[in-house]
Amino acid sequence: MTIRFYNARILTMESDRIISGELWTDGSRISYVGTADDVPAQKNVFDRQIDCMNNLLMPGFKNCHTHTAMVFARSLADDLTLDEWLHKAIFPREAKLKDEHIYTFSKLGFAEYLAGGITSCFDMYFNPEQSARAAVETGFRYVFCGSVNDFGGIDRLENEYKTYNSLDPLISYRLGFHAEYTTSRNIMERISQIAHDYKAPVYSHISETRDEVDGCIARYGMTPAKLFDKLGLYDYGGGGFHCVWFNDEDMDIYSQRGLTAVFNACSNIKLASGIARVSEFEKRGINTGIGTDGAGSNNALDMFREMYLDNTLSNIAEGRAASIAPFDTLRSATSGGAKCMGLTDCDILAPGRQADVIMIDMNTPCMKPENNIVANLIYSASPQTVRMTMIAGKILYEDGRYTTIDINSVYDDAERLMKEIR
Amino acid sequence: MTIRFYNARILTMESDRIISGELWTDGSRISYVGTADDVPAQKNVFDRQIDCMNNLLMPGFKNCHTHTAMVFARSLADDLTLDEWLHKAIFPREAKLKDEHIYTFSKLGFAEYLAGGITSCFDMYFNPEQSARAAVETGFRYVFCGSVNDFGGIDRLENEYKTYNSLDPLISYRLGFHAEYTTSRNIMERISQIAHDYKAPVYSHISETRDEVDGCIARYGMTPAKLFDKLGLYDYGGGGFHCVWFNDEDMDIYSQRGLTAVFNACSNIKLASGIARVSEFEKRGINTGIGTDGAGSNNALDMFREMYLDNTLSNIAEGRAASIAPFDTLRSATSGGAKCMGLTDCDILAPGRQADVIMIDMNTPCMKPENNIVANLIYSASPQTVRMTMIAGKILYEDGRYTTIDINSVYDDAERLMKEIR
Repeated sequence: MTIRFYNARILTMESDRIISGELWTDGSRISYVGTADDVPAQKNVFDRQIDCMNNLLMPGFKNCHTHTAMVFARSLADDLTLDEWLHKAIFPREAKLKDEHIYTFSKLGFAEYLAGGITSCFDMYFNPEQSARAAVETGFRYVFCGSVNDFGGIDRLENEYKTYNSLDPLISYRLGFHAEYTTSRNIMERISQIAHDYKAPVYSHISETRDEVDGCIARYGMTPAKLFDKLGLYDYGGGGFHCVWFNDEDMDIYSQRGLTAVFNACSNIKLASGIARVSEFEKRGINTGIGTDGAGSNNALDMFREMYLDNTLSNIAEGRAASIAPFDTLRSATSGGAKCMGLTDCDILAPGRQADVIMIDMNTPCMKPENNIVANLIYSASPQTVRMTMIAGKILYEDGRYTTIDINSVYDDAERLMKEIR
Repeated sequence: MTIRFYNARILTMESDRIISGELWTDGSRISYVGTADDVPAQKNVFDRQIDCMNNLLMPGFKNCHTHTAMVFARSLADDLTLDEWLHKAIFPREAKLKDEHIYTFSKLGFAEYLAGGITSCFDMYFNPEQSARAAVETGFRYVFCGSVNDFGGIDRLENEYKTYNSLDPLISYRLGFHAEYTTSRNIMERISQIAHDYKAPVYSHISETRDEVDGCIARYGMTPAKLFDKLGLYDYGGGGFHCVWFNDEDMDIYSQRGLTAVFNACSNIKLASGIARVSEFEKRGINTGIGTDGAGSNNALDMFREMYLDNTLSNIAEGRAASIAPFDTLRSATSGGAKCMGLTDCDILAPGRQADVIMIDMNTPCMKPENNIVANLIYSASPQTVRMTMIAGKILYEDGRYTTIDINSVYDDAERLMKEIR
């Protein structure tokens, strides 16, 4: 399948420059990106030609930390404290989740991703078989993060790593564990060993709450970042999710090791965890990503809202306006996330790169006037502006319609399956 | 014109109960709301019948503090401090604004309101003639707030009050001034006199930044709320915009006087002004409203994002999750705002009330599963879910199309007019 997008404006994310021109795809990859003037003379060979009517093409958003199938928990119990929520609302229901739940709720999550311009996710949850099945059927680019903790996962980790890194081009797997406070030292050491065996990066929740950091210091005499580094977990890179309570030394480790800090602003304010010092990470040149966290604690899988908060809440943390440039936030939500997830050919729009492309409707009131398109993307855009989402050269969402998801069946199945666990 | 909405779910906002049934309109008003079973026998007289396909009807959002025509300043200079932004980016451009600018940018703002389910706004800006013209042409419900300050407005205030309260059923006008730090005591006293002459409520920006409060205390030995109360400005009610740095005594005044505190979370974090203690106001039973502030400092006119932040940022201020019930936030964004703006017949869906109604698409991934629809509206919905916006019984926006706005002309005019002032 070859597709030609013409009359487009294109933000490749190599820089903040927006060009007027064309983008072509051939199979799963981009075959041409450039101005209309430079287009090679082979316009007639395309299977489909799309007039972009001056709308914007850009790389899809990378949701760099999420628990997709947890859409089942959306608005299920927002009035509980984190501890009550986990023990009364979540764990008892998770115990009831069958294959069909994970499959259906994963698809529902992917549908929300596509409608919001998200082309890949870094997902931490259990029952990988069903999520992978849903992802491959949908055509969604899916990166697993291992979710080992004291309740399980360590014995499957190496096998899952091998299985899901060779299953399908859309699927990959990175080593990971839940968090320090749920994972004993012995298990962390075993993960470190696997990381060394495969020269692989490792990821986890880290410093999400102040209690978590205090607890780690009480147990080990050091912060989680320092502990993980000392255990060799970061010897081949990786990163952490949330990073709300990082001190300067933690940031130094992330900087020196080339790790990625992934921020989850919505979840952090909704659960009263705190506000990450994002601008400080940006200032130090640490690679950053942005994630929605699960719908149980957000409650939307909306990278626009996430970008807005990632950028503006940092002003509250710093006590001054404009603490982060909009382009830095956009890079974090696209190429920064891609780097974190190992999706090195999904980062920017360029020939040879994977065709993970979205079209933003520029004819929406919130995108007008066009004083600064990048700033509009961060400060005024919403999922309403997403007109098309393409992954690996395949259009999966266009003008409100899904091409690979029978969305009404997913809605019906989701309600039916909720009855079993509600 | 009579319209029948059937197969609807309806959230009247009288309570958090959602009924399945019908809503009828006759002219500008609602003629029936109720379950399908109770429907009177007169189904054939309607000019139009709309199958809601189980989607949700609810009152439109009231944008309770905004500067609509400032959409011209969207993403114009996000990298400046508030002071630089005003003096370098805004004031020089505002000096160049002609009638056509105010008219066109007001229309652009109304288009954004309609696409986001907003059916009225409480607007503080200059050149009321052109905003009123744009509002009446659009069919948008528009409430002026006087914007007197030391640079002008006081001599026109009484005349504007009389003119715009009798111009058109869609237009009304409430007394108001910019803020304490821009308005001398003498002028505030003159406003108070007019308020007494007309037994009218008064509104202003209040306690938006810590500096503003400190400055007021230095000048008058008391906070703005106390000062305004002492000057008699609140003798007939009213309220304030932002209310970030209210102390307990300020809240007592608002509580005792029956005033409305209007919150603007997005603008407050973007400009690093601070986080309002919204849950504390709710706890005291103070009437609250929610506003977007102007697009220059937000940068979207999006009540969904605003509701999310109004609710969740309060958790950061309080240091605990779930500090405000979602229904309280929704009430603030609808009937609370209506009360503030004097739109006493636009608050809930009931027979005899104005038909300011929106339809929320329940078949959107972010609204699934339906664990708690009210919570979904606050925590996971976005403008993407808005399917229809009706004001005074007239459908102005439906499935992405405007019925009274030539939107492409507005876009073209907006870009052309920006060139004159950019």
